[in-house]
Amino acid sequence: MDRFEANVQANQERFLAELQEFCRKPSIIAQGIGIEETADWVRDRLQGVGFDSQVIQVEGGAPVVYGEMGSGDKTLMIYNHYDVQPPEPLDLWDSGPFDAEIRDGRVWARGVSDNKGPWMARVQAIEAYQKEIGELPFRIKWIVEGEEEIGSPNLGRFVEENKELLAGADACLWEGGRRDGAGRPVISLGMKGIAYLGLSVSGASSDLHSMNAPIVGNPAWRLIWALASLKDENENITVDGLMDHVVKPTEEEWEYLRGIPFDEEESKQDFGINSFLKDATGPDVVKQLLFDPTCTICGFLTGYTGPGLKTVLPNQASAKVDFRLVPDLNPELVLRLVREHLDRRGFTDVNVELLAQLWPYRSPVEHPWVKASISVARDIFGAEPVVYPSSAGGGPMYQLCGTFGIPGISGGGVGNPNSNLHAPNENIYVEDYMRSILYTGHLINAIGSL
Amino acid sequence: MDRFEANVQANQERFLAELQEFCRKPSIIAQGIGIEETADWVRDRLQGVGFDSQVIQVEGGAPVVYGEMGSGDKTLMIYNHYDVQPPEPLDLWDSGPFDAEIRDGRVWARGVSDNKGPWMARVQAIEAYQKEIGELPFRIKWIVEGEEEIGSPNLGRFVEENKELLAGADACLWEGGRRDGAGRPVISLGMKGIAYLGLSVSGASSDLHSMNAPIVGNPAWRLIWALASLKDENENITVDGLMDHVVKPTEEEWEYLRGIPFDEEESKQDFGINSFLKDATGPDVVKQLLFDPTCTICGFLTGYTGPGLKTVLPNQASAKVDFRLVPDLNPELVLRLVREHLDRRGFTDVNVELLAQLWPYRSPVEHPWVKASISVARDIFGAEPVVYPSSAGGGPMYQLCGTFGIPGISGGGVGNPNSNLHAPNENIYVEDYMRSILYTGHLINAIGSL
Repeated sequence: MDRFEANVQANQERFLAELQEFCRKPSIIAQGIGIEETADWVRDRLQGVGFDSQVIQVEGGAPVVYGEMGSGDKTLMIYNHYDVQPPEPLDLWDSGPFDAEIRDGRVWARGVSDNKGPWMARVQAIEAYQKEIGELPFRIKWIVEGEEEIGSPNLGRFVEENKELLAGADACLWEGGRRDGAGRPVISLGMKGIAYLGLSVSGASSDLHSMNAPIVGNPAWRLIWALASLKDENENITVDGLMDHVVKPTEEEWEYLRGIPFDEEESKQDFGINSFLKDATGPDVVKQLLFDPTCTICGFLTGYTGPGLKTVLPNQASAKVDFRLVPDLNPELVLRLVREHLDRRGFTDVNVELLAQLWPYRSPVEHPWVKASISVARDIFGAEPVVYPSSAGGGPMYQLCGTFGIPGISGGGVGNPNSNLHAPNENIYVEDYMRSILYTGHLINAIGSL
Repeated sequence: MDRFEANVQANQERFLAELQEFCRKPSIIAQGIGIEETADWVRDRLQGVGFDSQVIQVEGGAPVVYGEMGSGDKTLMIYNHYDVQPPEPLDLWDSGPFDAEIRDGRVWARGVSDNKGPWMARVQAIEAYQKEIGELPFRIKWIVEGEEEIGSPNLGRFVEENKELLAGADACLWEGGRRDGAGRPVISLGMKGIAYLGLSVSGASSDLHSMNAPIVGNPAWRLIWALASLKDENENITVDGLMDHVVKPTEEEWEYLRGIPFDEEESKQDFGINSFLKDATGPDVVKQLLFDPTCTICGFLTGYTGPGLKTVLPNQASAKVDFRLVPDLNPELVLRLVREHLDRRGFTDVNVELLAQLWPYRSPVEHPWVKASISVARDIFGAEPVVYPSSAGGGPMYQLCGTFGIPGISGGGVGNPNSNLHAPNENIYVEDYMRSILYTGHLINAIGSL
């Protein structure tokens, strides 16, 4: 792999220039800017490195770029996205978000960390690998979508409609990643899912004077009692049967959990709290954060909520409740369990609606491709990787990895702890970018040797 | 009393003209219009009929007119108010709200039913009584306040500051009243009180992404659990000890309750509900409405409540809760009981504030002056009175009657079921007005004979 590394080093200037070119294309899905053009550019660039690539239209959504190359027994799926977050507020940027200025050893641009840098680094790694080492030792199936920043609303349907095309991969190289402040590569092997529910209750035909409260039902009380039955004062989710579906961490996952650096005091100070939920300390805090499902009231509105007072008996009450899901929960299951739970307690008057959904996914940590990706990251970064068996947040990992029952692997991310994802002055270090190219080349080599 | 009645009949035109004159004076406390002038006019008119009357300034509030006349063992307190509700929306009035037009046998004016007509009728009754029958058979202490329509915020303090002046009455003739559609005089002997509480909980130092929910507490949950402990799903108030203070209806009160006409089907249709709370039917509905305390969520706000969704862990939650009070509850007691109840359950993080308060009051139905007022109403209206041992709404009856431990009496109201109190086209029938004058004269006579 020495020749590969030399090639990468020799091409640094060209690689960076190409990264800048990519970052200078606004592709803001939320604002509908530059989507088609960028998709075409991505397709062309993949073709340039040898992929059989195409732009696949998705009804009512942004096109997905799909590319395939290589042959053999093994297949690696790769997932990236070409869309970016809106750049606003513009006045907080030190240089234009689409100027892609290189300054102080960093590239500054919207999307450079999330997710244009990672994609570009992979393309360039494959280019250098082919030139110096030879043909890819396995098949690659590459999906580059354009709606990640708005929650991948059509990715599931795309996968469903192109299942045969996408099938047969052994693992999926996930979109990106980062290193932590100590230079340790951060690897995430799973993502939580979401069942975001809207609950509502109606009462009398209009708001009434509260003197009628002794004889007319109050939808606010009905909703409060219904909600109080979903989670108890000890912070336990009490939806009938829900916790039975929660998979506990394995001993190996516990090991990774214990290896995740987490400064409790700093975190409490950041949040402005005195203690963590359930008075958790040590690895239990991280375990809760990554492995526990949640039932969160994100919003509740009824009656009069302005200054002073109004003696009103409301006729409407509504709440938004966010369930964060871990395996083996899923949104439809949670919706059904909540509905049955409420019906069983007579809360048939509580309307429940699924406002947003995402399936959870956790990769099997003992899978050889997972081990390989961790091992390569350890070598390239020269530091012990921090492995998150799952992230606290949600993401579309299930739609690719879960659908095909394959692990999601990662480890060579271009990000740093201050990459400002989704914020002004998004940036990556040139050094991290070049290392990410090396990571990809070595990962290809390692998987080829499995 | 024939000469009294003849005098009233002979003076009808003059009495009505004087009522019009009074109604043409806007005295809108919410808008600060005409308060001082109207108070002076009221004082002068009381002087004109022989009262030793004065305008008493109340610091930061509208002046109270106080008048005294008569002597003897017995003393009747009278309560009225000279302020009125704002007349808006003006375009819904068929004649000007301060024109006091007489049309189709009715007087149309803001305040004619609430509460200028009742006061004027009493003054004119006393005038005719003195002329035809002689001196008053007892002492009258008359309080005419100017802030009833904004909740009598200073009446309690006025009473406190003038306790010696006001003390010694045997009963208080309450402000007004009405007849029902069948011509039966409606008498109310009590009013509920209010403890309007503001509850709030704070969490992290700012709203957080809801992915942090496994480790950071949610004030919305805390408030929901706290509230759910105050009232159970069977609609029972479960605040420790609160219900122990609730006085049950006496057998005589039950008799009155059973006599109150209440069309269940019509009421359910009006409210747009299928059944009353606790599936009550028959006299139980009226009993609940008039004798049960309430704990009503008037408002609840936390987090994101707009369209769609936001995955937020709120750092603030607040609720407004209206307790309607019956004897022997009172606002300070309820505040203390709620506080202790929450503390006992570990909800020390729930802040509780008393936003508004009013003491409840119920007159003893067996008091001879109460019996006299009911009896006179029966005679004058020629129909069996509908006696409400308490009203469903609140009012300042406690501040006068409760403070001095005397019954509140009534029965000769000028209102009709369509008097449009607080609404456009407020009105009373001329016939009802004249009957109200007769009622007052006969009540004076009846009490004099006790």
